[in-house]
Amino acid sequence: MKELAQPIARLVEEFRKLPGVGQKTAVRLVFHLLRQPPEEAERLAEAIRGARQNLRACSVCHNLSDEDPCGFCRSAERNPKQICVVESAQDIMNLEKTGHYQGLYHVLGGVIAPLSGVGPEQLNIKSLVERLQKNSAEEIIVATNPTAEGEATALYLAKLLKPLGVRVTRLAMGLPIGGELEYSDSATLQHALDGRREL
Amino acid sequence: MKELAQPIARLVEEFRKLPGVGQKTAVRLVFHLLRQPPEEAERLAEAIRGARQNLRACSVCHNLSDEDPCGFCRSAERNPKQICVVESAQDIMNLEKTGHYQGLYHVLGGVIAPLSGVGPEQLNIKSLVERLQKNSAEEIIVATNPTAEGEATALYLAKLLKPLGVRVTRLAMGLPIGGELEYSDSATLQHALDGRREL
Repeated sequence: MKELAQPIARLVEEFRKLPGVGQKTAVRLVFHLLRQPPEEAERLAEAIRGARQNLRACSVCHNLSDEDPCGFCRSAERNPKQICVVESAQDIMNLEKTGHYQGLYHVLGGVIAPLSGVGPEQLNIKSLVERLQKNSAEEIIVATNPTAEGEATALYLAKLLKPLGVRVTRLAMGLPIGGELEYSDSATLQHALDGRREL
Repeated sequence: MKELAQPIARLVEEFRKLPGVGQKTAVRLVFHLLRQPPEEAERLAEAIRGARQNLRACSVCHNLSDEDPCGFCRSAERNPKQICVVESAQDIMNLEKTGHYQGLYHVLGGVIAPLSGVGPEQLNIKSLVERLQKNSAEEIIVATNPTAEGEATALYLAKLLKPLGVRVTRLAMGLPIGGELEYSDSATLQHALDGRREL
């Protein structure tokens, strides 16, 4: 396809680097943008540039933000007595979408994974301990993923933080809403049984 | 989510405008870009800007290109005796991917659709006739989509162009490769029967 215009070939190639975008999707995205008014494409280009250049890790909670401290850490409306520990800044978005949590966050930047050479010292754990020593948080909600590494990290944090006189809790594991017993794996069912509640 | 950093919210919103991209995909794309080196995001932003700013319709065939005439119209290796008529520049990419066609192209910019108020005069048909009068094309391959409008446009072009002494052909319609009779609609099967070939 050497006759193809370079700007098209280049943009297809760049879109293909995005997760879940193959050749066909990339071509569709390119021609969609070419049908839009130039301002529309410019807004997307500018938003990409702005996000990548202006976002830094918050010095308190390591969330990505264009301000330091970030919007959560500065807010007077959030409850400083609760800190939810997540693996990545992306997880904060999912928790916020529930509209159900009003406390603060702490981004670990990963999980303890000895096989990949990630130990506690590579994660933002030291700064979490310092935060607890300085402030009056009463509960740490560990919201790492329900994977082997996420579980191990949760247990490590519980052992480390409980002696500081703080309550350490973990997100409930069990059946997802709308799911069916028939399609649940046995590890999930086991957690659902263990965590059963009085009706 | 008012505590969310503005550059993230803005980029999520821009990604969501793309076809097939919902909230979850947009968030995944944003955080994917944030994990990449800044040059990578910059390359994508620059490619979007470059494509939208540098591409114009070729004055001969109306394909999108950063040069005029476009790469196809300038190429000495393409066969000027064949012109393939397509609805949009995007269709050229699909035909080129087959590696099976060596002629030139002509982009209509749509199809005749009276219900949407699109008549022959809104399409690049006049320039196609002029092209045929000036040059020595021997065959026009009509590659509009196999829809009602695409068919009507093909018939219109055949009627218009045959008197100019040019052969007008249409892409074959029939069973798609890898498809099954069981799942074929009857219009497709009818075309497959009508277009049957000697073995």
